[in-house]
Order: sequence, then C-alpha cells, then structure tokens
Amino acid sequence: MDIQQRIRQLRNCMKENGIDMYYIPSNDFHNSEYTGDYFKCREFISGFDGSAGTVIVTMDEAGLWTDGRYFIQAEKQLEGSGIKLYKSGMEGVIKIKDYIVENLGKNQVLGFDGRVVPAAWTEDILESFEITGAKINSSLDLIGRIWKERPPLRQKPVMLLDICYAGETREDKIARIREHMKKCGADYHIITTLDDIAWILNIRGDDIHCNPVVLSYLIIGMEDIVLFAKQDAFTGIIPGILAKAGVSIKDYNSIYSYIRNLEYGCKIMLDKNTVNQSVADNIPDKARILDMVNPSVLWKAVKNNIETSNIKEAHIKDGAAVTKFIYWFKKNMGKIPMSELSVTKKIEEIRSRGENYIGQSFDTIAGFGSHGAIVHYSATPATDASIEPDNLLLIDTGGHYLEGTTDITRTILTGKHATEEQKKYYTAVLRGNLNLCDAHFLYGCSGVSLDYIARKPLWDMGCDYNHGTGHGVGYLLNVHEPPNSFRFRILPYPGENAVFDEGMVTSDEPGIYIEGKYGIRLENLILCVKREKTQYGQFMGFEPLTLVPFDRDLINADLMDEKEKELLNNYHKKVYDEISPYLDSEEAEWLEKACAAI
Amino acid sequence: MDIQQRIRQLRNCMKENGIDMYYIPSNDFHNSEYTGDYFKCREFISGFDGSAGTVIVTMDEAGLWTDGRYFIQAEKQLEGSGIKLYKSGMEGVIKIKDYIVENLGKNQVLGFDGRVVPAAWTEDILESFEITGAKINSSLDLIGRIWKERPPLRQKPVMLLDICYAGETREDKIARIREHMKKCGADYHIITTLDDIAWILNIRGDDIHCNPVVLSYLIIGMEDIVLFAKQDAFTGIIPGILAKAGVSIKDYNSIYSYIRNLEYGCKIMLDKNTVNQSVADNIPDKARILDMVNPSVLWKAVKNNIETSNIKEAHIKDGAAVTKFIYWFKKNMGKIPMSELSVTKKIEEIRSRGENYIGQSFDTIAGFGSHGAIVHYSATPATDASIEPDNLLLIDTGGHYLEGTTDITRTILTGKHATEEQKKYYTAVLRGNLNLCDAHFLYGCSGVSLDYIARKPLWDMGCDYNHGTGHGVGYLLNVHEPPNSFRFRILPYPGENAVFDEGMVTSDEPGIYIEGKYGIRLENLILCVKREKTQYGQFMGFEPLTLVPFDRDLINADLMDEKEKELLNNYHKKVYDEISPYLDSEEAEWLEKACAAI
Repeated sequence: MDIQQRIRQLRNCMKENGIDMYYIPSNDFHNSEYTGDYFKCREFISGFDGSAGTVIVTMDEAGLWTDGRYFIQAEKQLEGSGIKLYKSGMEGVIKIKDYIVENLGKNQVLGFDGRVVPAAWTEDILESFEITGAKINSSLDLIGRIWKERPPLRQKPVMLLDICYAGETREDKIARIREHMKKCGADYHIITTLDDIAWILNIRGDDIHCNPVVLSYLIIGMEDIVLFAKQDAFTGIIPGILAKAGVSIKDYNSIYSYIRNLEYGCKIMLDKNTVNQSVADNIPDKARILDMVNPSVLWKAVKNNIETSNIKEAHIKDGAAVTKFIYWFKKNMGKIPMSELSVTKKIEEIRSRGENYIGQSFDTIAGFGSHGAIVHYSATPATDASIEPDNLLLIDTGGHYLEGTTDITRTILTGKHATEEQKKYYTAVLRGNLNLCDAHFLYGCSGVSLDYIARKPLWDMGCDYNHGTGHGVGYLLNVHEPPNSFRFRILPYPGENAVFDEGMVTSDEPGIYIEGKYGIRLENLILCVKREKTQYGQFMGFEPLTLVPFDRDLINADLMDEKEKELLNNYHKKVYDEISPYLDSEEAEWLEKACAAI
Repeated sequence: MDIQQRIRQLRNCMKENGIDMYYIPSNDFHNSEYTGDYFKCREFISGFDGSAGTVIVTMDEAGLWTDGRYFIQAEKQLEGSGIKLYKSGMEGVIKIKDYIVENLGKNQVLGFDGRVVPAAWTEDILESFEITGAKINSSLDLIGRIWKERPPLRQKPVMLLDICYAGETREDKIARIREHMKKCGADYHIITTLDDIAWILNIRGDDIHCNPVVLSYLIIGMEDIVLFAKQDAFTGIIPGILAKAGVSIKDYNSIYSYIRNLEYGCKIMLDKNTVNQSVADNIPDKARILDMVNPSVLWKAVKNNIETSNIKEAHIKDGAAVTKFIYWFKKNMGKIPMSELSVTKKIEEIRSRGENYIGQSFDTIAGFGSHGAIVHYSATPATDASIEPDNLLLIDTGGHYLEGTTDITRTILTGKHATEEQKKYYTAVLRGNLNLCDAHFLYGCSGVSLDYIARKPLWDMGCDYNHGTGHGVGYLLNVHEPPNSFRFRILPYPGENAVFDEGMVTSDEPGIYIEGKYGIRLENLILCVKREKTQYGQFMGFEPLTLVPFDRDLINADLMDEKEKELLNNYHKKVYDEISPYLDSEEAEWLEKACAAI
C-alpha cells in the first residue's frame, strides 16, 4: 500500500474540486466509534488502523491526530508515509479545529463528506470561518473517488431480541419516546446512532465488526415510524413483527429525500452531535430543529431488572471461561510454546463453548511484555510475540451473549518470579480498581466525581494512564456505550457526563504502561446499585460483575491497607463461590488457591 | 411588614399590565450574588432575606425557591406569609423553570424586569414557550412601582488599586483582553459583572455590602473604552488616570442607548449567562453576538505572583487575629457572658487592628449550638444566643485587606467536655478538609474531580452537607468568585467548572449540620500550586493559606489514619511557626499547646 501515492491522488482530486484542505475523520454515517470496512477512509489514506484518528490533507502537508492509546502504534504505522503525527491531548499539540482555522485563509475551502461529520462539528467550524472568511464544501466524498477497491456496505441478516433478554417491548420503548417527544413539542425524532436504533426496536445485526448493530436510520413520527435499512436483511416474520409495532422499512439511502419531504413547520428532535451534516443539510428550511441528546441514550444505559439479571449470568459464563483460560495458561506456560495469537485463539475457543455465545465484543488484545504497553495493541502475524517467562501478559477480551456483553482485562505473570517494580505497579493499579468499585456516594455523582479514586494510587507516585478509567457497556450492543463513564476531565458533550443511576454498567479499568517493558491493566465491569437512603439523600455504590481472580503472584500486600486487603479478599471469595461450580476439580482446586485470602 | 398586603398590591399591578405570572429573582442588573439594598426586590416581596432565592407570584399562588443553605431560615421567615417554600435540589421538588412552563397556558404572560434576568435565562424560557404558546413581557419593574421607600442606588467613592497590590497594570489587562477579542473576531466586549470590571480596571468601590465593587458597566472597543457609572464617585486624579488607559466615564444608565448605537454589522463579545436581558434587547439587529465566558473570569481567578505573595501576608494577619480571638474565647468562656453577637463584635475588633484592613468580606456567621446547623445563619438581636458550655460554636468570618480577601470557618468546643458524637463528626469533617488540601492530581482536574475526597468521610457514614465544598475567592473582591470551586455535580454553566491552575484560591470547607443540636464546618482557603512534572504530565496540589488551629478538644485521633495525623501535625506546625511571632507570650504559649502533635 503506497500511502504517499494515495495522498498524491487525493491532492489531485482536491485541485480539481477547488479544495484547499480535506478532512477525513474515522466516522461512518452514524457517528459510530467503530465502523464497517466501507467507511475506513482514514485508514485507507494513512495506513493507521487504530480505532480513533483524523487525517487532514492540504496541498503541502498531511497530519494524523490520535489519542494516547495509539501514540506508539501510530508512530510505527505512519513511518515513511510523510504524514505527521499530532498527539491529541498532549501539551503544546495543536487541536484539530485550531489547525483547520489557522491554516485556511479567506475564501479557501475545507472539503469533506457531510455524511461522516456530525452537524454540530460543521456548525462550530462555520462559526470560526465567519471570522476568517474560509468556506466549506460538505458534499465531497473524495476518498470514494480514489478508493478503487472499496468494500461494499455490510448488511447482515437482522435478528429480533426476545423480551426475555430485552426486558421491555419495542412498543413500550416507542411509547416512552413519543411521550418524551410530546413533552418537548417534537413531531419527529431522527435517530441515526446504530445502538440506539437496535435498543429501541429490540433488533440486533452484525453490520460492524464486533458491534451487533443494524446499519440503519430511524425516524419516529407521531403516526409513522420508518426504519431506513437494506430491506432484504429483514427476513421471515421480522418485517411483520416490526410492522405490528408501527415500523415500516424503507431503503437505507432514501432517508435524505424522506427528510426533505417532512411537512412545513414541523419540529424535529435530533442530536446535532451525532446526526450527520447531510441529515442537517436536508432538513426543510421551515422545519425547526430541537437539538438534544436522544432520550434512548440514557434509557439504554440504565439496564432494567431482566437485563441486569441476564448480565450477571453472562458474567458467570464469561468468568468461568476466562478463569479456565488463566488456569490453562499458568499450567502450560513454559511447557508448550505460546504466543499472543495462540492465547487469543485459546480464549475464544474456551469462551465459544458458552451457551448463547454470539461472538467477541471486540478483538482480544493480548500484549506480551512491551506490547502490553501499547494500549490498544492488536497482535498480527507480523508482530505476534512468543510468550516468555517472568514478564507480564496483558489480556483485554470480551464476549457478546444473548444475556449481555462482557469486557475484562487481566494482567498475568508469565513465570514464577515477579520483580518488585512489577508488583509495585500491579498493586497500585489493583488498589485503584478495588477502591473505585467500593465508592459510596450520594446520588448526583457522574464518573468525573469518582475517577480520582482509581487514579490516586498512581498519581501519588507521579504516574498516570492516558485513557479514561471506564466506559459504559451495552446489552448485547456496543462495548463502549455512553453516557456513563469514568474520566477526570469534564467532556463538553452533555451526553457523556451522565449521573450514575441504578442499573448502569461501567468498566473500571485503571492501568499503567511502561514503554518498552510491559503494560498492566485490570478491568472489571461494575454495576451501579442503590445503597442506603438517609435524610441526606440516596446513596449509591457499585457491585463487581466480572468474576475472574487477580494474580496473587503480582500483589505486594504490604502496599495495601487493611480495607483494601478486605476488598480483595471479599472479591476473591465471591469469584470462588460463583465460578467454582462451573470448573472441573483440578481447575477448582487451582481457583481456591488463586482466591485465597491475603 | 405585611407580606400578604404587598403580594395583593403586586397582583393588582399584574392585572393592570396583563401579567399572569411575575418572576422576582435575587439579581441586580449585574448578575451579582449579593446585591445592594436597591435591588432587594425578592426580600421586599417575601420577607425572606437569605442571599439566594426566587419568588414567583401568580393570581392565586406565591412560591419561594431557595437552596439547602436556607431551608430552615426560609421556613421561619415565610411563616404566615402565604408563600409556599420550594426546597431546590430536593427530590420531588419542581424546578423553577418547570413551574413557570407548566403553569402558564397559551397566550398567558410571564412578566419580569429584564435588567435583573440573564439573557440566557430568557432565551431558555422562550424556547419552552414556543411549545406552550406562553409569552413574556421583559420591561416591567412591578416591584419598583409598589416599593414606596425603595433605597437609592448606592455609589460610594472609587479607589484605585496600586500595582503593588494588583500585580498587573490595567493597561496590560486591557491589552490581553483586546488580543483575545481579536482572536475571537470581536469588535466590542460588553462586561457587566462587577468583579470583572473592578479587576480589569484595578479599581475598588463599596457599592455592595462586603463586596468592594463599583456599580458600573464596561464596554471595551478596539479604540474606546467606556465605563458606565455614577461619575461623581470618581474623584481627584482617578478620572485622569483611567483616561490615560483609554477609559472614559459615562452615566450609569446610558449604557442601553450606547449599545443601541453600536455600528451596523459589529461583533459583540458577551456572556449571555451574565449579561442582562435588557442589554440583549438593546443590541442592534444587525450586530452579531459572540456568546462566551468573559476571559477575565479565568484570568482574575489565576492570581499572579504579586497577588499570591500578598495573599499569604493577608492570611498571616488574619490568622493571627482569629487565633487571638480563639485564645480569648477559650480563656474567657464560662467567665464572662458571651453571645453570638458579642463574639462577632470581638472578632471584628481584633481583626480591624490589622494593617491595611478594609472591612469584612461577608457578615460573620457565629452560630451557637442549634444555630450552627443553620448553614448561613446570621445572628440578629432577636435571635442572639448566649454561649453556654459543652456545645459547639461555629464561626465563619473573613476580611478584606489591601493584600487580599480571607474566609475562614472554625468550630470551637465551648466548654471542656466534648461528646463522642461531637468528636466523631468533627473528626470526619477535619479528615475531609485535610485530605482535600493534600490532593495530588494531574493537570486537568476541576473541583468536580476532587470534591469526593472531602465528602468521603461523611458519605462513608451516610451523611452529607447540602452545600458545595468550596468556592473561588477574589483578591480584595467578592468572597465567592467563580470559576473554580469544589462540588460533586457538574454545573451546566461552563464558567463554573474551571480546571485548577497554579494561583487559584479556593475554599475547602466540608461540614455537617445536626438539626436542633449543632453545626460543624472547617474552612481553609487553599492555593493551587504546581507539583512535579513527570512523563505523564504536570502534577498539581494545594497549599493551605489559612493559618488558625483546629480544636484538638474535638478530635478523636483513633478515627484518623497515620497519614491524616501527619497532615494535621504538619498543618499545626506551620500555624505555630507562622502565627506565633504575632502573638503575645501568653497567646503563643496557648498556641503551642493547641498546635501540639497528636
């Protein structure tokens, strides 16, 4: 793949279309975090295949912006491309928007494909351009013109999610949304985020790798509901069942003309932060936009009782699988050859024996030694490292079950002898993980208010991890699901700072990455629960969902206080009690030792 | 004062003007937190004199909304008025905006004085009214019509703040603002917040009780700067010195016509959250508003080196004064009669001996026993309680000096014998105070990320305090100064969630309030400082500015861990070292014991 040649071709296209700067984000038409192959324009033009990144190309420069998870990977993948790496979030690194605004003079033109850019982004850029006099052209898919072998749009068969898994009918969800629309005075609600659509309609698909969503748009009116999707993905009784809920299916691409024909004066509820610019471009002049976060974002995050009890089941199955894997690993380490790819395969093999297992919730990260320090490392045949004794193996892996989605990270000593440094860092990360799950807080806290708890042991040492402490997790849906999260910075988008509510599932995954040596991350999913209600208000807390032992060989108990030891011992007791019934006697015997009190 | 009669008069006025609901917030024309007597319309109409509250009157209802600090006080003051108390922030209590929107039908009219309402508030209401069909009339000062003996606007003589106190010339501040305006493409910057104006121009006044501000508006253009104020408050050389910086003075009320005459097509930078609706109403149709937080908000919060070193001096003077007071109190308690008002007077008497002392930064709160549980209690001759042994006295007090503004709260055992309950709560509050000041965090944290530290000891017991943990503090300016604060909820207004920066001064004041018994609050001002810079980024921390001992008689050391004891002992050592040189030998001897290590 000759990246330099592709950039030359793009510049030619830019010249032909009078474009001075071309903007290539990672988005699909739905503001998805991960995207189908059809949408991987940024990867096509840069060679960088991390999940987050943005490329900007001018006539004499090309730059890639990505975040701390990908600095090391991007540096490698950009080598020789002529593309400059901008490390987002680091001191002194220009922000994407500032770069655009500062590098386009009066009447110069920024080009992009309006379908892969949120409407709010365009609004913001236009506000700056009012001052500088630069212009936009939002109707140019230039990558599409030079990408000869672009993969087709993926639309796999759709399945319905039974009420025994979803816990609420699509009719009830639609009724809730219409009630909310009425309260806000909306005639229509345009929803383009794929996980919201899947949640509302209780449908699942397979249109994005590891994300069981259906490539579609949804418009809910007070009378009609139209789902824009590939019609032949809906087979058998499915169209009839959706029709019973008032949902008709129209062609995926016809959404734009449908929007253009909405009646004069109607009020349309949508979220400019997620809806793409082409949707906004097609809204009739005399319609009014009610810009707000989709109500389904919060409702979907708050799992109902049926979902919650299913999720606990999923975590027992998943916990047993990962525990079996660790047992197998510890037993065979040093005896049979193992590599990052072979252990990845082994985990998948064990996990796939689980009942109602659908597939991976993301590509397993198995990072041995220095690879563990690359936050979102993904082994390939070319990088696949042999696993050797007395270092660390970081495994971040998860599955989709009909009973929910899992996501777990464990860091495992690959031999018998941990260094004091490895123990020091492992114990600090573990303390952060345990203490965050033990948070006891008044209702009203978002993850911003609690993130400090997880980072404190590392911050006390002058260390940090360059990623959020946790993300929301969908129910047989996206493994990264807003609006709940743990992070110490307040995000500008209101849909990402949610107050914790009973039923929210969030990851708790502090880490530390020692470049060139190893990475440590310990991740449990935790469920938000109600605690006592006092005269001061409703107190809240978390319960661990993930049930897999931490590695006692990597813990220095002297660095933990009594409370922390108690938290660890209680967690390990719970792991043993819940998981041992699903193990054979050898595995169970091993688990008993692995879960022994310290 | 017959509140019921005033409400009848208001309703008559409402009828005459076709108003169905009248809205009376606590604001002046400048969105000030505290206001001059001229602006106390809400107090006039309701009898409730807390610092925060809003009254709404309809033809058959009248309601007052206030926050947790004032629930007890408001209940008392509203007795017999017929006004219903709405406890803002409590579960199930309707929000003001929801009340307005739900209680006004199509074509019904909400009336208010546009000068006492932020422009953003009106915008938000109008958005809801588009759905309900209700209307507004923003030009009605109906309270002004029925308030026969309304006090005049207060405009006291203005003083200039010397560069040895301000640390930066007004010319430099103006240049910084103009640079920022240029970057944002603004032709004018309208500033109506009084502390911003005082900071920019290095002027101080006395137009709001305890807030050394000058009642004024400021418009900075690229050529001219106009200060709208009462001209005869500027005496001697002051107008000439301001003129040298390009500032001319025009009549206070002429701002509205000045704005109306700004040129066609100009771009005006202002903050709709602070600028009043009448300012917005007068902006020419063809001007463009650049709505953003005033840059001076953040710049003013980040104290420069000269300010910081002055502030430390102010805290030594203030610390000596309050320490002397506590010594006097402990010595004389039980020997001479003391009451809330007498000790308030005593503190002021001692503090006023300090060099460059200007006055109180707010009315001292001295709450004995159950009065201490009323968060913003203020003793009056009618409520003044005699101070008796073996209970708690909560004193929250502060001063303005040329070297800066102080704010301290101490809770003192009034006898020799503290109960275990008193000690349990005092120690929990103390631990929160000490641990917050000890926070060690990566640059990027706002107070939301750190608030948990102060509340944790109380939350662990199922307790809480119904107020923020801390607020920014001005330099010889408002004792409550955004944008830095400690609170666990993210505020919607971006100007109130500031990231901590070196030089910010914030209060650290957890508390606990046991209704009917006593209140405990421990408040230090703390200075944000840089700590080490590592490969992970710039670490930050705090240093205590306030230097007054905590009450060892109220501490149960068994409830503190070793780290917390060390924090307390280090703090007390610092207090002794810094303050003892300013005490007589008896006082110093007492302080040595009060600061002895536990």
